[in-house]
Amino acid sequence: MTRLLLATRNTKKLDELRRILTSAGIDELTVVGLADVEPFEESVEAAATFSDNALIKARDAARASGLASVADDSGLAVDALGGMPGVLSARWAGRHGDDEANLRLVLDQLSDVPDERRTAAFVCAAALVRPDGSETVVLGRWHGTLTREPRGTNGFGYDPIFVPDGDTRTSAELEPSEKDEVSHRGQALRALVTHLRELASA
Amino acid sequence: MTRLLLATRNTKKLDELRRILTSAGIDELTVVGLADVEPFEESVEAAATFSDNALIKARDAARASGLASVADDSGLAVDALGGMPGVLSARWAGRHGDDEANLRLVLDQLSDVPDERRTAAFVCAAALVRPDGSETVVLGRWHGTLTREPRGTNGFGYDPIFVPDGDTRTSAELEPSEKDEVSHRGQALRALVTHLRELASA
Repeated sequence: MTRLLLATRNTKKLDELRRILTSAGIDELTVVGLADVEPFEESVEAAATFSDNALIKARDAARASGLASVADDSGLAVDALGGMPGVLSARWAGRHGDDEANLRLVLDQLSDVPDERRTAAFVCAAALVRPDGSETVVLGRWHGTLTREPRGTNGFGYDPIFVPDGDTRTSAELEPSEKDEVSHRGQALRALVTHLRELASA
Repeated sequence: MTRLLLATRNTKKLDELRRILTSAGIDELTVVGLADVEPFEESVEAAATFSDNALIKARDAARASGLASVADDSGLAVDALGGMPGVLSARWAGRHGDDEANLRLVLDQLSDVPDERRTAAFVCAAALVRPDGSETVVLGRWHGTLTREPRGTNGFGYDPIFVPDGDTRTSAELEPSEKDEVSHRGQALRALVTHLRELASA
């Protein structure tokens, strides 16, 4: 068995990658998280793109652990905000991780923006860095529009104000399994599967 | 004398345009403001670009007054924020016109962004709409970088955190006359002078 490090402490993310590998028939890789390896110093995520942030995290993890490592970075790109909050999604209102303040600020900023210009996309970059130093980055995009008030209690971040194209519910009103199948993260991780299959058979 | 309507109630802006016309030797135009014409319903400024906002204001003014009308729209475009606050500069923190909250939010959003990526530009669009319906829009751009703390008490808006290229002072530390000569608004208004000269001689 080859160990694959997913650079996260979030057990839901670990389980999600394990499910994706299982359903792809890849059973040669054991997914481990940051809690399973020696602690190391992690860089501040301050790059200008999701791809660079994911790469920085995956490189840190691969260098410290010697394992093939996957990391992701994601956020909401709002067209009327020039693609922001983007890489600043988690700290849009100024403090890190205040979901309620972040989504409220986006709604306030867009209060005069008409419905036809309230388009947005959740974007996820997933990076794979191999022990030989070779790198792969893939992107997943989930397109939709923004509501004027939050709805729903599933998910996190901007889920309560994002209505995916083709649906009328916000992503916080989708079942978690529904969201996994179509979301930006799901898309990005599934786009990595081909590369992980090669890694598993190498 | 031909009357030229500048779509503003700000007497400093009226005086600035008068000074610019005088120094260009254009004395056939009398600049009046919104306080000098019959009141009319003004559109909400909610377009996606400075140019469109300026045009909307100038069209409203020209239609209501029958006069050749000038309007401007301006804001701060921060590269690390995808060009925002942009057209949302005046309401970036969620409420209209809270300068202190707006610039504090920008500083907080950029707190992890390194110095070399703190570039920004003040942008001003100035639109001229003539009684015959013909339109001209010009842009002025003032490039610089953002500080980590506000400095200076002149000006307004984001002036205390903007250091123009080639200077070490913030634009809130410049004398108003110095700022007029180089600012985005000064550049845009001076770019209109050729067109106003034609208007004056027509």
